[in-house]
Amino acid sequence: MDRIPILKLGRFLLVSIQVDMHDQMAVALQEELTLRIVSDSARGVLIDISSLDIVDSFIGRMLSNIAGMARILDAETVVVGMQPSVAITLVELGLSLPGIRTALNVDRGMDLLNAGTAESE
Amino acid sequence: MDRIPILKLGRFLLVSIQVDMHDQMAVALQEELTLRIVSDSARGVLIDISSLDIVDSFIGRMLSNIAGMARILDAETVVVGMQPSVAITLVELGLSLPGIRTALNVDRGMDLLNAGTAESE
Repeated sequence: MDRIPILKLGRFLLVSIQVDMHDQMAVALQEELTLRIVSDSARGVLIDISSLDIVDSFIGRMLSNIAGMARILDAETVVVGMQPSVAITLVELGLSLPGIRTALNVDRGMDLLNAGTAESE
Repeated sequence: MDRIPILKLGRFLLVSIQVDMHDQMAVALQEELTLRIVSDSARGVLIDISSLDIVDSFIGRMLSNIAGMARILDAETVVVGMQPSVAITLVELGLSLPGIRTALNVDRGMDLLNAGTAESE
């Protein structure tokens, strides 16, 4: 069951990260996500991290990589559901998640994506 | 990280089950879900089981329980993303998931919920 499901929500894809990521899993997620962006013609990716109590530099880099890959494939990435304690730790560690947009929850993330992609159609 | 996140999608709640459920976790999920149905005034619950390779009688009963509780709280439940092999095993085991509606994916599940709840408003 070491697979993170990618759910299609209209024009967007939703990934809910619930387990501790290791290297191989992160690579698999990146691969599957890029394939799905293409096959589903997705305009945006929502990554829910509300289950994560810790976001370290490994997870931060993975999120940045995903956002970078998605951007090249013309899809925006929004990270949603970050816990307050995670935000505090990120700033204390000096990790600013460059290139990543965040939103409070999935609903607001979808609003952000809708606002961002509406003008380009 | 033994918590299954409940995501709000407009009027509906989305739960993506990615890990092996044990008793305590199932009870915690039922509790949190019922609280969230009330606090978010949710009209429907989508349960994604695309990560599950096996749905046994324990999971089946948990899904039935959730659907029953949600129904009392005036929310419909749709199970989405079932793998073909899971459907085969369920029928072979004689588990028919009574009281549970299913849909191929989240998008179709939302269509089903929208169709079901539109007339009641």
